[in-house]
Amino acid sequence: MKLIDGKKISSDKRAEIKEKVAKIKQQTGKTPSLATILVGGDPASRVYIKSKIKACEDAGIKSFHYNLDENSPQEEIIALIKKLNENSEIDGILLQLPLPQNKDAQECLNTISPLKDVDGLHPFNAGLLNLSKSWNEIIEKNILVSCTPLGVVHILHKSGITIKGKTAVVIGRSNLVGKPLSMLLLANDATVIMTHSKTRNLKEICKSADIVVVAVGKARFVNKDFIKTGAAVIDVGINRTPEGLCGDVDFDAVKDMDIEITPVPGGVGPMTITMLLENTLKAFNNRKR
Amino acid sequence: MKLIDGKKISSDKRAEIKEKVAKIKQQTGKTPSLATILVGGDPASRVYIKSKIKACEDAGIKSFHYNLDENSPQEEIIALIKKLNENSEIDGILLQLPLPQNKDAQECLNTISPLKDVDGLHPFNAGLLNLSKSWNEIIEKNILVSCTPLGVVHILHKSGITIKGKTAVVIGRSNLVGKPLSMLLLANDATVIMTHSKTRNLKEICKSADIVVVAVGKARFVNKDFIKTGAAVIDVGINRTPEGLCGDVDFDAVKDMDIEITPVPGGVGPMTITMLLENTLKAFNNRKR
Repeated sequence: MKLIDGKKISSDKRAEIKEKVAKIKQQTGKTPSLATILVGGDPASRVYIKSKIKACEDAGIKSFHYNLDENSPQEEIIALIKKLNENSEIDGILLQLPLPQNKDAQECLNTISPLKDVDGLHPFNAGLLNLSKSWNEIIEKNILVSCTPLGVVHILHKSGITIKGKTAVVIGRSNLVGKPLSMLLLANDATVIMTHSKTRNLKEICKSADIVVVAVGKARFVNKDFIKTGAAVIDVGINRTPEGLCGDVDFDAVKDMDIEITPVPGGVGPMTITMLLENTLKAFNNRKR
Repeated sequence: MKLIDGKKISSDKRAEIKEKVAKIKQQTGKTPSLATILVGGDPASRVYIKSKIKACEDAGIKSFHYNLDENSPQEEIIALIKKLNENSEIDGILLQLPLPQNKDAQECLNTISPLKDVDGLHPFNAGLLNLSKSWNEIIEKNILVSCTPLGVVHILHKSGITIKGKTAVVIGRSNLVGKPLSMLLLANDATVIMTHSKTRNLKEICKSADIVVVAVGKARFVNKDFIKTGAAVIDVGINRTPEGLCGDVDFDAVKDMDIEITPVPGGVGPMTITMLLENTLKAFNNRKR
């Protein structure tokens, strides 16, 4: 087994971003900025938001945080988003998910200006990704793509794992990870298999794949039976268990196989926030303010 | 082999649409309408446009046709689209593809109002499809989806072919067919395999599938080696050959197999225009004019 060092890939990328931010400041006198919105006090969400704010600080990106009450009506969230859309000082807007119950997350996301949509969850940006014909087009057009899938692809690229012509299975079809990741892998010329809870023979399907990405949020869901020798395994899951954090892959069960794999923690996790910084820079550049 | 009668499925659906249009006229005094734009005089495009206008007439849908010169600058196409966007009498706008060389089709498509985008090629509509979590959501939200893929799914539904839990291979990843079709099949709970020119072992992959949809525009590309016994084969190709029209499937080579298959002509072809009428109705309803 070869461990893929997500921490290292992430910190290299963050250093690169930090440099770009410094250059922007020097050349334009302006500072890229991110607004984060947290509704309610979910402990995990608080931790994520804190890390995001901290990462912005470290990279020299200005951040503004808004904490709404758990019981804030949806109109209040939307009103805040609209205010931030109009605020020319703000480049990116991140609405921390999940929202408390009884709120329609997609409806809130749809009100974020596509230009400031650093999570790539506005239909316009999801559509731009879908219509892109290549990875080059995605890069050249500065398309805002959901951070975790973007991080996964960055890990594959930086690890020297060929995507073109390879068979890639994506387990899980969420709007945040599975679907955008499938489109990114397709743009990178993989043969992409989209699987989910209704898929039969999942093990056999995965066992045929060169690249397996799992994002289902089920601790140790993927074991030896899913993985072929020589495969690259990307574990997007972050599950809290009595034994501590663990991924969607049963790491102990596969660790003696001849594979490359991202650990949890220290694999995909750090990349998500890194790509949020990258997207904030993209949003700054797209807005050319 | 069991032939899937696309003509019959199509004419049933057109009768249903015609009834709906009559009801709308009766209840609102208004007539759903479609504007078609043809740039240049490509013979195949002319034939398609004629059929589309004829189908509108037959269904009671008003149609307006605009023929621009082959050498019209792109700005002229865009100016026409903008005029049609603002014209409250027009419900749907169809820009016939492909455009003559030196024109950026996607740029023109992006100027069509998403509410009038009956080909579902505006990024906003492509994104709504991508973010949809089920077929029900696509129907309930009246999302405008590219006509040919919509026709394919309608054929599968009407033929009693189960999609849920089945493995569906889509050959070809165009924005008009392959990609939206993959998203539709996913929304219908298929395990979806997106394949294309960079795919290796295409035959083996197809041979494992319950549903094979081919949309590559290569005459007789798919033969016996691609198809497993019992599979449903949907042939989207329409190729002009010295021996006449033929599909992407080598029909003669597979006709003795125990499969269900759409013929060419008389399979998917008629559905595309039928779904254009359906989308025009959807656009009328979404605009609630």
